[in-house]
Amino acid sequence: MLIVMHHHATKEQVDHIIAAVEAMGLTAEPIPGSLRTAIGVLGNQGYVDDSTIRTLPGVRETIHVSKPYKMASRDFHPVPSVIDVAGVKFGDGQKPVIIAGPCSIETEEQMLTAAEQVKSGGGQMLRGGAFKPRTGPHSFQGLGIEGLKYLQQAGKEYNLPVVTEVMRIEQLDAVCQHADMLQIGARNMQNFDLLKEVGKLNHPVLLKRGMSATIEEFLAAAEYILSEGNRNVVLCERGIRTFETATRNTLDLSVVPLVRELSHLPIVVDPSHATGKRMLVPVMTKAALVAGAHGVMMEVHPNPAKALCDGAQSLSGEHFAELMQEINRLLDFLGYQE
Amino acid sequence: MLIVMHHHATKEQVDHIIAAVEAMGLTAEPIPGSLRTAIGVLGNQGYVDDSTIRTLPGVRETIHVSKPYKMASRDFHPVPSVIDVAGVKFGDGQKPVIIAGPCSIETEEQMLTAAEQVKSGGGQMLRGGAFKPRTGPHSFQGLGIEGLKYLQQAGKEYNLPVVTEVMRIEQLDAVCQHADMLQIGARNMQNFDLLKEVGKLNHPVLLKRGMSATIEEFLAAAEYILSEGNRNVVLCERGIRTFETATRNTLDLSVVPLVRELSHLPIVVDPSHATGKRMLVPVMTKAALVAGAHGVMMEVHPNPAKALCDGAQSLSGEHFAELMQEINRLLDFLGYQE
Amino acid sequence: MLIVMHHHATKEQVDHIIAAVEAMGLTAEPIPGSLRTAIGVLGNQGYVDDSTIRTLPGVRETIHVSKPYKMASRDFHPVPSVIDVAGVKFGDGQKPVIIAGPCSIETEEQMLTAAEQVKSGGGQMLRGGAFKPRTGPHSFQGLGIEGLKYLQQAGKEYNLPVVTEVMRIEQLDAVCQHADMLQIGARNMQNFDLLKEVGKLNHPVLLKRGMSATIEEFLAAAEYILSEGNRNVVLCERGIRTFETATRNTLDLSVVPLVRELSHLPIVVDPSHATGKRMLVPVMTKAALVAGAHGVMMEVHPNPAKALCDGAQSLSGEHFAELMQEINRLLDFLGYQE
Amino acid sequence: MLIVMHHHATKEQVDHIIAAVEAMGLTAEPIPGSLRTAIGVLGNQGYVDDSTIRTLPGVRETIHVSKPYKMASRDFHPVPSVIDVAGVKFGDGQKPVIIAGPCSIETEEQMLTAAEQVKSGGGQMLRGGAFKPRTGPHSFQGLGIEGLKYLQQAGKEYNLPVVTEVMRIEQLDAVCQHADMLQIGARNMQNFDLLKEVGKLNHPVLLKRGMSATIEEFLAAAEYILSEGNRNVVLCERGIRTFETATRNTLDLSVVPLVRELSHLPIVVDPSHATGKRMLVPVMTKAALVAGAHGVMMEVHPNPAKALCDGAQSLSGEHFAELMQEINRLLDFLGYQE
Repeated sequence: MLIVMHHHATKEQVDHIIAAVEAMGLTAEPIPGSLRTAIGVLGNQGYVDDSTIRTLPGVRETIHVSKPYKMASRDFHPVPSVIDVAGVKFGDGQKPVIIAGPCSIETEEQMLTAAEQVKSGGGQMLRGGAFKPRTGPHSFQGLGIEGLKYLQQAGKEYNLPVVTEVMRIEQLDAVCQHADMLQIGARNMQNFDLLKEVGKLNHPVLLKRGMSATIEEFLAAAEYILSEGNRNVVLCERGIRTFETATRNTLDLSVVPLVRELSHLPIVVDPSHATGKRMLVPVMTKAALVAGAHGVMMEVHPNPAKALCDGAQSLSGEHFAELMQEINRLLDFLGYQE
Repeated sequence: MLIVMHHHATKEQVDHIIAAVEAMGLTAEPIPGSLRTAIGVLGNQGYVDDSTIRTLPGVRETIHVSKPYKMASRDFHPVPSVIDVAGVKFGDGQKPVIIAGPCSIETEEQMLTAAEQVKSGGGQMLRGGAFKPRTGPHSFQGLGIEGLKYLQQAGKEYNLPVVTEVMRIEQLDAVCQHADMLQIGARNMQNFDLLKEVGKLNHPVLLKRGMSATIEEFLAAAEYILSEGNRNVVLCERGIRTFETATRNTLDLSVVPLVRELSHLPIVVDPSHATGKRMLVPVMTKAALVAGAHGVMMEVHPNPAKALCDGAQSLSGEHFAELMQEINRLLDFLGYQE
Repeated sequence: MLIVMHHHATKEQVDHIIAAVEAMGLTAEPIPGSLRTAIGVLGNQGYVDDSTIRTLPGVRETIHVSKPYKMASRDFHPVPSVIDVAGVKFGDGQKPVIIAGPCSIETEEQMLTAAEQVKSGGGQMLRGGAFKPRTGPHSFQGLGIEGLKYLQQAGKEYNLPVVTEVMRIEQLDAVCQHADMLQIGARNMQNFDLLKEVGKLNHPVLLKRGMSATIEEFLAAAEYILSEGNRNVVLCERGIRTFETATRNTLDLSVVPLVRELSHLPIVVDPSHATGKRMLVPVMTKAALVAGAHGVMMEVHPNPAKALCDGAQSLSGEHFAELMQEINRLLDFLGYQE
Repeated sequence: MLIVMHHHATKEQVDHIIAAVEAMGLTAEPIPGSLRTAIGVLGNQGYVDDSTIRTLPGVRETIHVSKPYKMASRDFHPVPSVIDVAGVKFGDGQKPVIIAGPCSIETEEQMLTAAEQVKSGGGQMLRGGAFKPRTGPHSFQGLGIEGLKYLQQAGKEYNLPVVTEVMRIEQLDAVCQHADMLQIGARNMQNFDLLKEVGKLNHPVLLKRGMSATIEEFLAAAEYILSEGNRNVVLCERGIRTFETATRNTLDLSVVPLVRELSHLPIVVDPSHATGKRMLVPVMTKAALVAGAHGVMMEVHPNPAKALCDGAQSLSGEHFAELMQEINRLLDFLGYQE
């Protein structure tokens, strides 16, 4: 941490800061400049909580050098992690994973049809939501446990590991029982209690980036899970909220190479939620793979026009099959073996 | 809802949309224009889920006229609500409520001192956090139940109703037992399961706006609580996330008169979290009251320089007492009686 | 500036950076930490251009301590500036200035009526646009020079100094001839050539904050004018662009006390453009004054329903007169003499 | 346009609105709903200026269906445009154009070396800035006319058409004389006077998206140029400003397929300015091409570590040559001929 003093800070104020830093068990290194003094803080093993220092007289600002995450950082864990979800592997050196399926689980038949389409198209994992976070309480909220059963059954039938969102701690047992991977949604990325409980399990987790989360906060959220013991975390970029309203969110694809540099955790992309427009999904899926994503998650529905949720961004089974052919050619070009 | 067709949509496509709208039990009213056709959707009692319509061939976009909230809306509930928290009243015609206290509950003594300062300064409610949402897992996470006891005791000693944040459903019983008002933090504004459970209680709730929540989403979150039966909701603006980094968040003060127009629920402002700078708290507190806030919540700590959390934005007891004198003069000017 | 090295940077890389800093005529002060080395850069008289340093091997990031402005900074000019516009004064210790008038100049009669309403209501300056920046080319673009004459005439008739926007360098002569104060609009805040030319004049300038400008960029834009010699700069907050669409922009009122801390230049607020809603203007005007604004600029139109531009946010003359009574009571309360 | 009335609007208010719409020469079509009335506005040939309507009693909001651009829209010009810049072609069916070169023109030798590297690497156009928009006035501002000559000479020597930014109207003659394509920078995207003057020329224009411009505003800015007669406009996405600070801007790659749908104008991507990090440029360049960009503009400097501007995001000549090999393999895979 660097403490920057005001232009007009007195020597007494500087000395007071040095004493305060030393009282925290750290070392203070004053750097006198022509305009102002700065004080380097040394000896910390990670992020320094600067709230007490920032309030002392003469301090203009504090600048963090350490990050609020450590176990998620590549500095401390240089070897890229490979996460195994019932045999499907996410990570460097692995063929990117295509996760597909409907936004919401609606009926047994819908899930079986969707799973058949995902499998025959060439997808490796099946998605489907049983508990749905909806902006207003008057929209369809999901089938709950009943839905989990349809999802599990469809996954088994077509030999596809399944992932589904968990919204509250009490659902964890049921979701772990029926799904191979837990999803933490964007709105829960900073539901720290949920993160901690998920951290105590061994189940693989798909952690979605919050709508307004910085990369630093995203990795700090992963740190909550990792620091409780669960190392099986896959990150997921799903668009951030900006002033642009022509797309549902703004897909921040640069985050893919950046996370690959900063962290050892795999990262996948969800172009369906990021764009909210079916027309944009195929092209942004391919762009995500070229950007280095370890997988892509997209919405596929047997009959998008009748979907109870997010039909506008879902592909039909036929459309998915066509897209998978293009994806396979692209992955082939990128050097991945069948 | 208005459905806008593409420039080149065919008559068959328009007819298909009309049939689809009618299949939803609604009425479709085509509005042929010189460039394109639009179709008005009538007969809905609230927000229409447009996801299936948006996907049909020939549709360019759908435009919502109804809002995703109803019980929170002034259209359906024109009389402003007054929320009573153990005798302290929030709402039109009531003197704005000053809530103060430390960010985190640290010790019994700290809480007693803080309560004494809040009371003698003229505050009406005491705040303090026992469960703390922190960006990274390596920061202080709060005292938990032990902290709730200190808070309750301090509130009783000084006759101040208390408010504290609840982060998970399992904490609800304990928090209701020790606190007069539950706070839902910004990171949990769309933790819909928590909202629903809180909606089943009768306890007053302080619902903070999410960091990137639109006013529409903010009121839809309140709707989750109201629609389960709990009408005792007070809203709280606490700054939104923007590109500006000179302040912690950007305090969106226009939301105060706007919410007063759109909703019957009271709204208070938290200038401490919005700005993150102690220097800005007094002036923004006064601006919030002039903007029509039904209350203000601010951080006061017996010794800000030693606060375990958010010291940089906390006022000392002396500073609070001075500010309260200014606030009282201002409230007097605004026509509120002692 | 602080240069933060990568975790795994070698001693050679650190030495290379030190040499590079010294080659720039500055002093490098290495600060070895337990995890990484940082290098303090000393001896600079202002902002250091870090682009060459950031590229050198082993560098993780560079952190600026100096700001890209100096003449606009309070550090270098501790006494608040008072700007005189034909006898009307903006700055600390002066009664806040009320600037009012229509968005666009439309006819001679409209301007005379508007001026009469501004004067009789108690406003001190008259505004009106002759050159209008409009999102699309098919909207009304302003009357040009003809409009400037109506503005000047109306101002003279009612003894109100006038302010009007200048959009291009070639307009400067004409605008200076007809107006007492030049306005640089939000879209031109980083039109650096225009800023430099305005800096060569002596005319007072009202510089509006760009829609997505940080406070640092805002003050750096003022620096462009100041550094060419023109010291007569008044800043204007007019709302920033965020994800919220319920208001036209988000009024960032915290910027007022913050700019007063960072700079010696006066700052006024434009609640009409910030909110885009007439209903919000009175309350946000009062909030701005309580927040410490040195003035407020608002749109007043003899007949808002027939305004060629921004009618939705304009007050009528009667509405303005009522608001001025409230403003005067508030200014009286705040201690300003008539 | 759709006019949505308040819940409690009276019949008289609705009639008044209808009369107002008809007074504008348009047709009003009332759509009575169960909760409120909406009024469709028909007969307009383009964007309707709603400012007078929005102010009338009883109106809750107005919703635009038409866009503020027409000539830039695919609705009115369904055939994709191909823009020819001295023989290099941008548009559908053309091999994407690689534009490369330094941020700033520094010396004759630097430009000749850069041009040699761009040519031998396989780039088709040369870029270089003679007039530089810099946040603060104390940074390097460019070589001006002298720089234009170096650029032109280097382009001629290596048979590469050149593009350079123009910042003010007075520079247009000189820039047209020395450059094959004019660039309008992000900060000038809404410098409407500059757009209009550029519209009167025949020179090809590269129009960069403003930092906080919506796609609608971006296309409306292009409309300013097109409507003056200059049809040779190429759009350029260069990142938008969001809350994320880990990259310089957020590259909004979804805009590429979206603009291809909404407009007939070609669109290129500038990953250097969008990300601000050299490490991210190669991967985002490839992602942009897969997303459908008609070209990419990137910064290449003979010696990035000594660049006077933006060295951190510049590639060296060697790095560029390597990247071009990958790009050519990718373009080959995408079906473009050598």
